[in-house]
Amino acid sequence: MPSTTHSSPASTLSVNALSQPLVARLLDHRAEWQLAVSEGPQGVRIVDAGVAARGSVEAGIAIAGICMGGLGQVRLRHGSEGWPTQIEVSSGQPVLACLASQYAGWSLSASKEETGGKAFFALGSGPARALAGKETLFEELGYRDRLPGGDGSACLVLEVDRAPPEIVIRKLLRDCGLRPGQLTIVLTPTASLAGTTQVVGRVLEVALHKAHVLGFPLDRILGGSGAAPLPPPGADAGEAMGRTNDAILYGGSVHLTVDTDDDTARALAQDLPSARSRDYGRPFADVFKEYGYDFYRIDPALFAPAEAWVSNLASGRTWHAGAPNLPLLRAQWLQEA
Amino acid sequence: MPSTTHSSPASTLSVNALSQPLVARLLDHRAEWQLAVSEGPQGVRIVDAGVAARGSVEAGIAIAGICMGGLGQVRLRHGSEGWPTQIEVSSGQPVLACLASQYAGWSLSASKEETGGKAFFALGSGPARALAGKETLFEELGYRDRLPGGDGSACLVLEVDRAPPEIVIRKLLRDCGLRPGQLTIVLTPTASLAGTTQVVGRVLEVALHKAHVLGFPLDRILGGSGAAPLPPPGADAGEAMGRTNDAILYGGSVHLTVDTDDDTARALAQDLPSARSRDYGRPFADVFKEYGYDFYRIDPALFAPAEAWVSNLASGRTWHAGAPNLPLLRAQWLQEA
Amino acid sequence: MPSTTHSSPASTLSVNALSQPLVARLLDHRAEWQLAVSEGPQGVRIVDAGVAARGSVEAGIAIAGICMGGLGQVRLRHGSEGWPTQIEVSSGQPVLACLASQYAGWSLSASKEETGGKAFFALGSGPARALAGKETLFEELGYRDRLPGGDGSACLVLEVDRAPPEIVIRKLLRDCGLRPGQLTIVLTPTASLAGTTQVVGRVLEVALHKAHVLGFPLDRILGGSGAAPLPPPGADAGEAMGRTNDAILYGGSVHLTVDTDDDTARALAQDLPSARSRDYGRPFADVFKEYGYDFYRIDPALFAPAEAWVSNLASGRTWHAGAPNLPLLRAQWLQEA
Repeated sequence: MPSTTHSSPASTLSVNALSQPLVARLLDHRAEWQLAVSEGPQGVRIVDAGVAARGSVEAGIAIAGICMGGLGQVRLRHGSEGWPTQIEVSSGQPVLACLASQYAGWSLSASKEETGGKAFFALGSGPARALAGKETLFEELGYRDRLPGGDGSACLVLEVDRAPPEIVIRKLLRDCGLRPGQLTIVLTPTASLAGTTQVVGRVLEVALHKAHVLGFPLDRILGGSGAAPLPPPGADAGEAMGRTNDAILYGGSVHLTVDTDDDTARALAQDLPSARSRDYGRPFADVFKEYGYDFYRIDPALFAPAEAWVSNLASGRTWHAGAPNLPLLRAQWLQEA
Repeated sequence: MPSTTHSSPASTLSVNALSQPLVARLLDHRAEWQLAVSEGPQGVRIVDAGVAARGSVEAGIAIAGICMGGLGQVRLRHGSEGWPTQIEVSSGQPVLACLASQYAGWSLSASKEETGGKAFFALGSGPARALAGKETLFEELGYRDRLPGGDGSACLVLEVDRAPPEIVIRKLLRDCGLRPGQLTIVLTPTASLAGTTQVVGRVLEVALHKAHVLGFPLDRILGGSGAAPLPPPGADAGEAMGRTNDAILYGGSVHLTVDTDDDTARALAQDLPSARSRDYGRPFADVFKEYGYDFYRIDPALFAPAEAWVSNLASGRTWHAGAPNLPLLRAQWLQEA
Repeated sequence: MPSTTHSSPASTLSVNALSQPLVARLLDHRAEWQLAVSEGPQGVRIVDAGVAARGSVEAGIAIAGICMGGLGQVRLRHGSEGWPTQIEVSSGQPVLACLASQYAGWSLSASKEETGGKAFFALGSGPARALAGKETLFEELGYRDRLPGGDGSACLVLEVDRAPPEIVIRKLLRDCGLRPGQLTIVLTPTASLAGTTQVVGRVLEVALHKAHVLGFPLDRILGGSGAAPLPPPGADAGEAMGRTNDAILYGGSVHLTVDTDDDTARALAQDLPSARSRDYGRPFADVFKEYGYDFYRIDPALFAPAEAWVSNLASGRTWHAGAPNLPLLRAQWLQEA
């Protein structure tokens, strides 16, 4: 094995610069992928991928690639493993791609008083998070993005059904250090084709996040891939949230490559799958309801792929735990015609 | 669900403009993909992908992408589901990609008297169809392509073993409103690598066409994907036609996303698979022979993928019907060594 | 079938020119894929993909594409066929891609006396081989690459853990007819992520090489695809070599399309799989050890994919022989967590 020192994530990589061509591609395909592009408050660019616009699975795949800061590959596979379509992802920089960029960790809110209308709440995702660096996670990652010379552009993805109010946009621009013309905000309601697709495209991110929750040292995660079945969006936001969670919790599979001692690698594989949670075994919607729709009462260990493979570079060994639960998914999603 | 109105297919999309880079790529790869490019009658460009030139599977994949008007993804997968190679397709604009462009629906013929030699018959496929719009299908689609300012180029794909005679080319140019230098004609005999590949790449189109035959409203089809096993070409045109049909009828699988009521979606899933036809169960070549090689005596319901998944965006439900019939395909195509 | 003459491989294709954009892409991704780029002896460019630099699976995929001279597609698949990750390859020019470029056939050595330090030995792979043409194989292929006007660049891949000494680099430049600024040398130790990946990406090449050993006429091989499971690198060079061999010998699957008589095609399918070797059935490392680490005592017939499909264009028939031996691979590579 190369005796590489375990450095912090390569700070020369700019998730915003790397995803800029992907944002341009999204805009180029606006007609094909059924997106609506408009100018929002302050002049920022708003891409509607499922609010008034129809959106598409293809847009969702492109948005998932943007969310990964240009450091991931995302694609659709027509398969025959009990479900017709799968989303497949991989990254050679999974910590930056998934945690510094894709993770929906930036809490953005405005009260009724502030908006002069409805209150607003969203969890921001995508590369612009790494410009603001408002989350404590960024200290652990030791990563912040900078636009070279203050030029270039940035993108934030919001799983919401309306554009953020002006007060939130002002905050975004201020925290990211951006002029309005530099920011693109993509709206992807969960109950839309693009929304469901980009959330299922988080299968690797969910694994990274659980590894982090388990205390696994992030700088020891070197690569990753994953796949999860893609359901149609649920009929409403609640059902859609249930489905995207079920897709990962009961259908997701990941492979992580780490560099550590074998006990630590084996423990990661053992503890990673959703089946290690006390709340495993029922559809997410049922669990959520049981806990009175209080997210924070759900066992955090549930948020994980169904299946984990962990390969340890230090020894060449691979551990495997968990398995997809297709019967549960098919019972939820499928009717025999 | 977004309350989008069900508009006609986005008329701003030009299948010819979108496929132009794919045609340029085909020409760039002429040596690698074993194509012969020549100037035909009137100065149109002729790409021989399997007549005197050898052609290749790779050329067939590229041609399938051109046939889909730049609105589809086509790729080869080396798999292990009972057959080594599969063609996989998907589109976020399946109606435009498959019916306005890919469907081989433009009847082109010339008599012996007109050609001064052999009679000619072909069914034109690909984006140039949408410039001519000679088929009644285009009225139903509410779609016609236009080259902006009359500039740009167009492409037609013909499943034939010789270039069309000058009289047909004149008709093509006239009907499409093209100057000769704007038209590329690709020749893909069924019994060639590229020919077989591009026909198997029609698995999604075959599903769209059957949905249309069944009276399903096309503007309610929002997305689709599919796959089918890729056989080697048959030894002659007849056997090759049998194989490409069998690949789809007994090996094809599709997933359609629609937006309708549940009864209509379920009925589509039930009625879509080839197994709903009275002619299902025997190799296509046998069926064709039984009907005295009269295409129009074959039950139209046979022309469909073996397996269908239909997801309804309105309810989030998915129906599944049919299944690949690998034993039939392997009995036809395979010898154990 | 088109009555194409069986010509020598298309000599107008330049594996170095075709892979030049892939080398540029590798350099562009140096930070993302964890590569170190430096200037070596004489001013040649050295890309370290796993010596002091960490490298990545993604770099290995890109390097495999360079090795195939730009005439192959290589990609990662996250699968569920008993192993999480697979490398998939295909080519419409498998003889040029695999034998004229990818095959590690150029023996490069320098004695202690020549280097003034440690002796050096490597088997050169990749497109620069075809400029030098030092191997007798090139006479059989009837192929030599030429840089147009002596311009352009070339790339050689070495499965080694240090840069070649100056005397070897001088020889490389002389034999290839290159100025130092035209040559890029990529270092991929077997026991690195990129090294293991690019070797597993040789699954099709291993089949081509065995077909050649079996005396099958290379100009009758028209196309090919393949896949093999990707293990993590072994903990040291010896174990890594065992794993990459096992990945292909016990997990590899290929599909070749040929144009010949049926007896010859069937014989190729029968004889191709590794199971036809007397040394089949034990991990490669055990076989190697048993023969006292003397490579040349191993039965050459062992070096082959586990499974072969051969389609004969002349008849349309396909033969199948062999099968992946996942239990052997899992026993070697996997621990249940």
